Amino acid sequence: MTVTQSLTDFVANTDDAELPAWSLHEAKRTLLNLLAVSLSGSQSEGANPLLHWVQGEAAAGNATVIGTGLRTSPGNAALVNGFLGHLQDYDDTHFPTVLHPTAPIWPAVLAAAETSATTGARTLAAFVLGAETACRVAMSVHPWHYDAGWHITGTAGVFGAAAGAGRVLGLDSEALTRALSTAGTLAGGVREVFGSQAKPLHAGHAAETGMRAAVWAQAGFTGADDIIGGRRGFWAVLSPNGHSEEALLGDLGGHWELRMNGLKPYANGVVSHPIQDAVIELRNRHSLEPEQVEAIEARVHPLVLELMNRAEPRRGLEGKFSFQHCAAAALVDGAGHDAQFSDAKVSDPLISSVRAKVSATVDADVAEDEVYLAITLSGGERVETHVEHATGSPDNPMSDEALKAKYVALAGEVFAPERVEQLFDAVWGLDEAPDVSEVTRLMAG
Amino acid sequence: MTVTQSLTDFVANTDDAELPAWSLHEAKRTLLNLLAVSLSGSQSEGANPLLHWVQGEAAAGNATVIGTGLRTSPGNAALVNGFLGHLQDYDDTHFPTVLHPTAPIWPAVLAAAETSATTGARTLAAFVLGAETACRVAMSVHPWHYDAGWHITGTAGVFGAAAGAGRVLGLDSEALTRALSTAGTLAGGVREVFGSQAKPLHAGHAAETGMRAAVWAQAGFTGADDIIGGRRGFWAVLSPNGHSEEALLGDLGGHWELRMNGLKPYANGVVSHPIQDAVIELRNRHSLEPEQVEAIEARVHPLVLELMNRAEPRRGLEGKFSFQHCAAAALVDGAGHDAQFSDAKVSDPLISSVRAKVSATVDADVAEDEVYLAITLSGGERVETHVEHATGSPDNPMSDEALKAKYVALAGEVFAPERVEQLFDAVWGLDEAPDVSEVTRLMAG
Repeated sequence: MTVTQSLTDFVANTDDAELPAWSLHEAKRTLLNLLAVSLSGSQSEGANPLLHWVQGEAAAGNATVIGTGLRTSPGNAALVNGFLGHLQDYDDTHFPTVLHPTAPIWPAVLAAAETSATTGARTLAAFVLGAETACRVAMSVHPWHYDAGWHITGTAGVFGAAAGAGRVLGLDSEALTRALSTAGTLAGGVREVFGSQAKPLHAGHAAETGMRAAVWAQAGFTGADDIIGGRRGFWAVLSPNGHSEEALLGDLGGHWELRMNGLKPYANGVVSHPIQDAVIELRNRHSLEPEQVEAIEARVHPLVLELMNRAEPRRGLEGKFSFQHCAAAALVDGAGHDAQFSDAKVSDPLISSVRAKVSATVDADVAEDEVYLAITLSGGERVETHVEHATGSPDNPMSDEALKAKYVALAGEVFAPERVEQLFDAVWGLDEAPDVSEVTRLMAG
Repeated sequence: MTVTQSLTDFVANTDDAELPAWSLHEAKRTLLNLLAVSLSGSQSEGANPLLHWVQGEAAAGNATVIGTGLRTSPGNAALVNGFLGHLQDYDDTHFPTVLHPTAPIWPAVLAAAETSATTGARTLAAFVLGAETACRVAMSVHPWHYDAGWHITGTAGVFGAAAGAGRVLGLDSEALTRALSTAGTLAGGVREVFGSQAKPLHAGHAAETGMRAAVWAQAGFTGADDIIGGRRGFWAVLSPNGHSEEALLGDLGGHWELRMNGLKPYANGVVSHPIQDAVIELRNRHSLEPEQVEAIEARVHPLVLELMNRAEPRRGLEGKFSFQHCAAAALVDGAGHDAQFSDAKVSDPLISSVRAKVSATVDADVAEDEVYLAITLSGGERVETHVEHATGSPDNPMSDEALKAKYVALAGEVFAPERVEQLFDAVWGLDEAPDVSEVTRLMAG
């Protein structure tokens, strides 16, 4: 068997009953989180080009676009929902690789489940196996692939989307190998477009491509036997500086990378979350006013400066990739919802004045979910804190209660409280549901 | 200006009248060739999964799928037509880079033209500028990019599709830069899938992605300023071993890479065309019978062995990437149409027996369009020839007459002779036509 075939053998032939209970609960949590951020995202101005487009396509099908009354083809729904799911950078993060698994995978799984007779429990299991596929592919090329400039959410995501959708459609290992071939050869997304709408498009493209690949494989579309490990395959071409077969295949079904996935408490790049935790903690503990603050100094993991060093963001989306803006907004507003990353917030005079006082130094001994942070006040006083594990990181996961609060806040932007609660119940009861129709009916606008 | 902006400035701001007359004639020739191979391709069994799928999508729109009565959305039509255009590997080749420009670009240009009020002349000009864009992008990363395992038709093609479709839609340089950003970040396609239906899918994906990127850019979708030259852009990520800004931008509008594009006389990988010319020449000159032949020995460019060394192809599609099969079929049938690459032909006992007698040795002094070939007969006699420039190569282009013969043969598989002639006239008169509707009406099935 090729390495791709070993992976598809696992995805196709693992019984639902073999999946750990926590993983199925995590699947529900990620779905709830997806709905929260996508509902809020569907209201963003940035969603208009794609929402307008998908409406015009008017493709036939029963797949639902989140936050709209629109039903369309599974591929189109997966595209738009994947885009919405990552639009606010408020989804989730597989910490070892910075992969965001939900946005590329759940929309493909959901679209497949909507258009086939699949129980809620089987749908949850398909997400778990799809997400594990994406995380394993990501682990197998990390850190070389991301360091080379690839947006791993798009590239590894496409494998997970094909695996998850293929699992729902009941593809066997042979067909799933062809589905992964089609999906994997179209893996795409580079980091150059970070800060633009093309970044969340990577998640949408992955979801759509995985969904289509599964459908086409079912119809007999041919492919390569080893898209991952072949001589001109994913490892060789998209990660020439290194790969690990052990990370892809070692202890499949025993060790779960999905364990390392965390839900985001802030609507921006994950590497600045420790900073935001720290600033909000000090702000609340010392009742700080922005006018008092002379300097905010952080000692951080190297990725903070590599990914989010933008002293003067010009647009809201760029603010999400500016640790300076994240810290300033956390101080002024005490939060990091999408509302803190509007164009207006980015050019707000008070936030801008604080932003100019934020600095960071790299410390290789500081972990990715950690920060040492000090705020100097105008009188010369200095207050400090150490965040060991940021909220939403694997060692400090968001609680079900905090997740529900996030969901209620974001879904409440679109739906009345009663419907917010009904949709929550539908997701939370999905393992007992005969199909996904109650969730998809309620998530429509 | 960034390098991407310099390129989009050229595409957006060149007047139709500045394009050389030969380039507009070449645009007609490539369109005729696209229709020929796509009409024939639409009859292939391998087209069924995508044709069935696009019918099921039933997307709204006026864009025509070649060889079918189906009208659909511009993106879906571009996807399927791009796939059909490359399905038989019978399209065209930009010799310096092995890019096949027509299949990813014409379907995007045509779909854009069908859904907007665009004259035939403007449509031809848009193809020329789109094709030049793709060829320039390809030149800028050649040979590093292809050598790394990328299918340059998919990756460079997406830039050309976006440029061509964007030109039809009247995008200015700023919008075109965003369109290229969206298209370029989704550039994809690896050589691992050669020999499967996923290879032509790369062309379809490029056409669809370019088409959509242009539409979304028109609607305001944001992107990066320099998807090609940026720190995490196309050059850096998909061609880390080298790139050339001069090849991308040098003498734009003066030097035309489209000049180096040739139409294919055989329905298989271009690097074995000199071998097929040579075998057919010796076969005809000496009235050879397959049973007489003891050995066929070729002295070839290194790419022949790198790309097409498959002594025992198992399926028809694999036969297209087997120089041994190409030579054997040329000897037995005297041709290299798609019919020579069916599953039946690949397992034909006579062709298989000849195939086992074909060998090649690499000679670095032999050019890509050149071969020295000798056939040894059972009596010990040895006949030889030297093909200096294969048919369809830049130094030996296919004549208009030969192209029409190819078109008539392939279109005749689908249409009655009268319609074949009408469609020919519509293409040949496109520069005088008020729009593309006559071509698209006649190309429908």
